[in-house]
Amino acid sequence: MSEARGGPVRPAHGVLQPVPLSSVHLTGGFWGHRQAINSTATLAHCRTWMDRLGWTGNFSTAPAERTGREFTDSEIYKLIEALCWDADEHTAELSTLTALAAGAQAGDGYLGTAYGRPGQPARYSDLNFGHELYCTGHLLQAAVAAARTGRAPHLVEIARRAADHVCATFGPGRNEGICGHPEIETALVELYRATGERRYLDQARWFVERRGQRTLPEHEFGWAYFSDDVPVRDAEVFRGHAVRALYLAAGAVDVAVETGDADLLAAVRRQFDRTVARRTYLTGGMGSRHLDESFGDDFVLPADRAYAETCAGVAAVMLAHRLLLATGDSRYGDIVERLLFNVIATAVADDGRSFFYANTLHQRTRTEAGPADRELLRFGGGPRAPWFEVSCCLPNVARLLASLETYLVTSSDAGVQLHQYADLDVSAGGLDLRVRTGYPDHGVVVVRVAAAEDRVRTLTLRVPAWAAGARVVDRTGSRPVPPGPFEISRRFTAGEEICLELPLRPRWTVADDRIDAVRGCVAVEVGPLVMCAESVDLDPAGADLDDLRVDTSSAPQANAVKGWFAPRSGAPWPYRETAHDHDGPRTPRVVPLVPYHRWARRGPTTMRVWLPTTPA
Amino acid sequence: MSEARGGPVRPAHGVLQPVPLSSVHLTGGFWGHRQAINSTATLAHCRTWMDRLGWTGNFSTAPAERTGREFTDSEIYKLIEALCWDADEHTAELSTLTALAAGAQAGDGYLGTAYGRPGQPARYSDLNFGHELYCTGHLLQAAVAAARTGRAPHLVEIARRAADHVCATFGPGRNEGICGHPEIETALVELYRATGERRYLDQARWFVERRGQRTLPEHEFGWAYFSDDVPVRDAEVFRGHAVRALYLAAGAVDVAVETGDADLLAAVRRQFDRTVARRTYLTGGMGSRHLDESFGDDFVLPADRAYAETCAGVAAVMLAHRLLLATGDSRYGDIVERLLFNVIATAVADDGRSFFYANTLHQRTRTEAGPADRELLRFGGGPRAPWFEVSCCLPNVARLLASLETYLVTSSDAGVQLHQYADLDVSAGGLDLRVRTGYPDHGVVVVRVAAAEDRVRTLTLRVPAWAAGARVVDRTGSRPVPPGPFEISRRFTAGEEICLELPLRPRWTVADDRIDAVRGCVAVEVGPLVMCAESVDLDPAGADLDDLRVDTSSAPQANAVKGWFAPRSGAPWPYRETAHDHDGPRTPRVVPLVPYHRWARRGPTTMRVWLPTTPA
Repeated sequence: MSEARGGPVRPAHGVLQPVPLSSVHLTGGFWGHRQAINSTATLAHCRTWMDRLGWTGNFSTAPAERTGREFTDSEIYKLIEALCWDADEHTAELSTLTALAAGAQAGDGYLGTAYGRPGQPARYSDLNFGHELYCTGHLLQAAVAAARTGRAPHLVEIARRAADHVCATFGPGRNEGICGHPEIETALVELYRATGERRYLDQARWFVERRGQRTLPEHEFGWAYFSDDVPVRDAEVFRGHAVRALYLAAGAVDVAVETGDADLLAAVRRQFDRTVARRTYLTGGMGSRHLDESFGDDFVLPADRAYAETCAGVAAVMLAHRLLLATGDSRYGDIVERLLFNVIATAVADDGRSFFYANTLHQRTRTEAGPADRELLRFGGGPRAPWFEVSCCLPNVARLLASLETYLVTSSDAGVQLHQYADLDVSAGGLDLRVRTGYPDHGVVVVRVAAAEDRVRTLTLRVPAWAAGARVVDRTGSRPVPPGPFEISRRFTAGEEICLELPLRPRWTVADDRIDAVRGCVAVEVGPLVMCAESVDLDPAGADLDDLRVDTSSAPQANAVKGWFAPRSGAPWPYRETAHDHDGPRTPRVVPLVPYHRWARRGPTTMRVWLPTTPA
Repeated sequence: MSEARGGPVRPAHGVLQPVPLSSVHLTGGFWGHRQAINSTATLAHCRTWMDRLGWTGNFSTAPAERTGREFTDSEIYKLIEALCWDADEHTAELSTLTALAAGAQAGDGYLGTAYGRPGQPARYSDLNFGHELYCTGHLLQAAVAAARTGRAPHLVEIARRAADHVCATFGPGRNEGICGHPEIETALVELYRATGERRYLDQARWFVERRGQRTLPEHEFGWAYFSDDVPVRDAEVFRGHAVRALYLAAGAVDVAVETGDADLLAAVRRQFDRTVARRTYLTGGMGSRHLDESFGDDFVLPADRAYAETCAGVAAVMLAHRLLLATGDSRYGDIVERLLFNVIATAVADDGRSFFYANTLHQRTRTEAGPADRELLRFGGGPRAPWFEVSCCLPNVARLLASLETYLVTSSDAGVQLHQYADLDVSAGGLDLRVRTGYPDHGVVVVRVAAAEDRVRTLTLRVPAWAAGARVVDRTGSRPVPPGPFEISRRFTAGEEICLELPLRPRWTVADDRIDAVRGCVAVEVGPLVMCAESVDLDPAGADLDDLRVDTSSAPQANAVKGWFAPRSGAPWPYRETAHDHDGPRTPRVVPLVPYHRWARRGPTTMRVWLPTTPA
């Protein structure tokens, strides 16, 4: 059943189809560079830490020797998945890791190092937080990657046995529980797609339908935390733990697509659309609360201590990609672009060896990074760290970057759709294309047709929602193109070029009035990039970003705004009857901006995305 | 050593002295009513729940039968303390509870139901979260109340044995650890004050000095959570868990006062003053983070999901009162007033049987109260609840209200100081006073001199910082009095009246520009009361508070503001390039305000303290 480097998502139906990794390659540029760092640094970095902390060893040591949190197995599976998708083959490493998993699998197919062995809690005794089915789900996804790349072939059989165990254990008249952390749902559907085993799809559907009936044990975070408060098809918006909600939704889309359940698909779309409209940061980040890593109420999106977990960014890309494939709606491409450039690109250090777990939009205090040889206990915030006690985000980003091409381009019977702009060689939909661009630093995207079938083909270019004034230049001339999908249908000829010009005019951005946290502030966006100001760039050097007031009377300059620094109040009580008096001199200053994804790369700094405007 | 109803705090030194409960009585009015509810309803309510959940039973049952969190013993001790301070004698109940404690005390004086018995973790095996010394501290404070009221006399001996055990166990060359949750420090000083046993003071000093050296086990919340990051005398501001920080500071003041350590006192003052200036809500509430119940960074004070734990309000009153006694600075009276009217009064339902654990300043969703017979698992938020799994706040408020008089008035060699205005009979400093007022609904406070020593006495009235335009009227005439302490020194005569007129003009309040969360908003204050708008009062009934824009072009009316409701955006993305267009009709509306402490008393509602103003 192996394919020549397929991809992580292969729906049987949908408006658009994914392009397998064998047919699309990042050749350089913004994302090519990051994928190369992922391949050459991050993958080995993850393995080193997993060995060092004993997480790989957990598969072969005695139960009493087990180390790490209950979900560490999943990190190894995510690493295996990333190693499968990666351009390099990693044959020996995959063999080693597969053997470890095989050695730990019980006779009945159960595979997990934290439960069920002597001295450990019983299997499935903590559905809320045990993460057993979550771990199994990542095993299945690793096996899908193995199946679709021909690497680690033994893993497929391990995963089938684990999936068979799940089917035999859970369901009507059996264990009627669900896992506190969704993941098994989307994984079972994908394993069904990869193997043709219908029981896996049925089992996934049962898990999806079972959720929302408050069958999980009551917990102080409430059933919403687990998305177990309301059935999937009845909910109005995502709520509770962001990653859990988004993984569940991805699984629900997969089930809906494979079973032709239009109502279920519409329900998830509705929830995602409302979440994007009301519960999403400017960066695309989702989940504002630290306490329970959850979505807050509508419009509660504080820039200070924004959580915006990296894993939620990965999960939102996964979900938006599934919705894009199912519906063809280019708005899902818009949100993927925002997430990639402003969450995923932000989370990883330049050397690929340290990471943000949370992605705040406002850093008030300069915080030193910790030592490079020490994991961060406080996983939900702080500077980029080499590792976290809870390190879900690191191999999650790694598997996304390793398979990134499949999220950038799709195909259909009519042709090929370019959703994201990067240096790509792609062969799909009857067209063989070379895409070259300096994006996002430059707005020109050149699509050269290397070869084309001799029939009418449609090349679809996503014009981002922000790109008013975009133009397409090709052999037929130059013309303005509105935001949305722009189709060029004709018989293409080898050697011709289509040039998309996206205007990267810096623009002020204001928020919905109901987002109290950023009232009276503006942000600056340039193309797909959210910009920010950092204290390391300030003149005078001692100035405080929180005193900055920007002047919006003229457009923002290229990567800089004008403003002034308000005098500080030293009042003993921070509330007063009359507005503060800023009648003193307003020395004009130019404050540099950098892309948000570049922040905290030049030493300790404070940072703001949202910049207060001058009063009145 | 019994005194005729003394009070919880009796420093040997200080600019001002506390007035014992035997010399000051609340006779009615705002606080008299609440104290009566506390006496007649809350105390019995607490006992009922403690019995029902088995927390009292923990003292007599087998270790395996123990129920509740590790700190439930402390709730019983706080209840005992409240029962001692209360106007009613509660003889039988105090006898029962004292006997329970006595029966559980080990031969070496250790008293705690959660550690050290067969099948339980070893004593002091979890200094971070075991709360053993914290529980002991509350035992000592209960014993101080017993000593100073002559009630539950046996408790004093129990507490001395427990304190002796602590002294024998902790210290240089012994266990050199500290408790993750401060409380033992202030309790040991007070037990020293009540018993004269110097070792208790020395032990308290050792605990205070030991903290800040990062001796507690490393934890994901960091040492700041436990105030163990920086020595007490070196810190600049309170940080970490708010209640822990404030209890520790109270103990440090106690140590400083008794040992004449001016540097230590100055350090705590500096930290408190900075905390008030930068880390305190308009209500006086402290601690903005849900995750770790902690102070946030300077000026991070989101109204949404403000934590402002009730216990932190109690602790801040305790600390400010100690600083007031030590320094005589009337600004500490200002913050106590703010805390009492806007945190303490808010936390308790009208019937004294349900409570806020957290005190948010912005409620976006209408939330139904839970059943009256069910404790709330989610202790850190939500509606008033009859009980919480973590119920520290309930008996904490009860003990404060039962001894409230001692926080309202002080005395000195020169005379008497009225810090808070309430219906009080007070005999102190050579004056016998009857204070009568409709405060805070009315601004007139009448102080009648019932008797006076025949020598010059000084009556000091705190004129609140907000009370510009206040006047004093007495036999010498009428005169304006500025905010701050106002002294009247003369030979008073029985029957004369001094009338303080505090102007209750509603006023707009704006926040420091650095509090991003409420930029572009105003609040309304009336006297000491923070006001709020509730959706239950809105016309039209379907209007949403988050659409309200208030018109600040004229002064707020008595308990109402003018404004209009902005049209809602239904945009699929909540950020845009141009400011929202509110050029549609602005139908003028009058929006009622109620005191913040009255909110959520009329069924589910949304609520805002900070009200957005019209754009431009």
